[in-house]
Amino acid sequence: MKKINVVESVLKANDAIARDNRERMTRANLLSVNLMSAPGSGKTSLLEKTLPELTPEHACAVVVGDLQTTRDAERIGDLASAVTQINTGRGCHLDAAQVAEGLNGLPLEALDFLFIENVGNMVCPAAFDLGEHRRVVLLSTPEGDDKVAKYPTLFQPADAILLTKIDLLAVLEYDLGRVRDDLSRINTRAPLMELSSKSGQGLGQWFAWLREQRQACADAAHELTEQSGQ
Amino acid sequence: MKKINVVESVLKANDAIARDNRERMTRANLLSVNLMSAPGSGKTSLLEKTLPELTPEHACAVVVGDLQTTRDAERIGDLASAVTQINTGRGCHLDAAQVAEGLNGLPLEALDFLFIENVGNMVCPAAFDLGEHRRVVLLSTPEGDDKVAKYPTLFQPADAILLTKIDLLAVLEYDLGRVRDDLSRINTRAPLMELSSKSGQGLGQWFAWLREQRQACADAAHELTEQSGQ
Repeated sequence: MKKINVVESVLKANDAIARDNRERMTRANLLSVNLMSAPGSGKTSLLEKTLPELTPEHACAVVVGDLQTTRDAERIGDLASAVTQINTGRGCHLDAAQVAEGLNGLPLEALDFLFIENVGNMVCPAAFDLGEHRRVVLLSTPEGDDKVAKYPTLFQPADAILLTKIDLLAVLEYDLGRVRDDLSRINTRAPLMELSSKSGQGLGQWFAWLREQRQACADAAHELTEQSGQ
Repeated sequence: MKKINVVESVLKANDAIARDNRERMTRANLLSVNLMSAPGSGKTSLLEKTLPELTPEHACAVVVGDLQTTRDAERIGDLASAVTQINTGRGCHLDAAQVAEGLNGLPLEALDFLFIENVGNMVCPAAFDLGEHRRVVLLSTPEGDDKVAKYPTLFQPADAILLTKIDLLAVLEYDLGRVRDDLSRINTRAPLMELSSKSGQGLGQWFAWLREQRQACADAAHELTEQSGQ
């Protein structure tokens, strides 16, 4: 019981900081996206394609979580206005306090998009709200078509699901119907976008989705400001 | 501090149960192997090839850990003497107490090999000794060539590292030299075996390694018995 109580109080404390993070980012009129997936599903490769697409119009920053190394931050360092690496040591997920610290070093008011690249892990990151506006889960085709049913806590609260590395479908035995079928039981809200960062296939719908979400977020923030002004 | 103390006492309690598990399995003269990897690296596919290879001579059992579903256990149910599924719910790893309970339902004295298929996760399973004799880590080629450096807590204590899905190397940009280089800094003890469960390439060395380890384990157990008899 002692362990459970401590875990609950850790989650409660995390959620309070997450609410603050969300309010800060909403006030700054930026869209924040928490990217979650298994290790090696292509979060950094997706950012390598996404940042150059958005940056002509929009200012983007990235907070990158990893146990060790700054390899991911180095890969995208030149593509964003700012990149902050958080090394978690043995920590299996980012938490809201780490992200709050990351936000302190970023010019929030000047940003349009903030991407948070979580630690590669299909279990623990799902339990920790970071204050993001949208949760995006990547599912890589070579991981197999059974992952939605096996990791429901990750896929259930997702706002969008990206099926990545579809260039490999030709050489894999992969049943996309099974993925759709499993998703239909736990999450009918999130769009499933099939894409490949390598070939570029399907990236257009992802970029369009990001722009729509940013607009929806800005509209909601504007409405809130108007309401609090009345 | 409170959180850290609780985590330490949880690990201590786990280690005590793990020692019991190891003693039980050593006395039963079986080799136990803890298979760890990211989700979808091919642990179950490897067992689908390994069990039919070993079973003509040897009795094998499997303990399978998953958050939800019994899909993996169903895949290998007919290939082993016994398969026990442990569903962890939101738990991100197997622990020694869960394995101890799994062992209670298995005919240990009749077994030669016990495979423990851990929850797909490159972080948390590494911290929990289950009482296994050998730790085997799978690294799937489509996950990328940077994972050894990014998840050292998993690779450092491994007794063998299996580079899986090498049939995909022809269509991936993969630097095997980088993997070897990263490994040379943290683990020079474990052999790196390249294989594909799909094509069968490289499986022979894995089967040979398993047989060698079982023999080494039996020799060590025999020596212990002789010493305690003197």
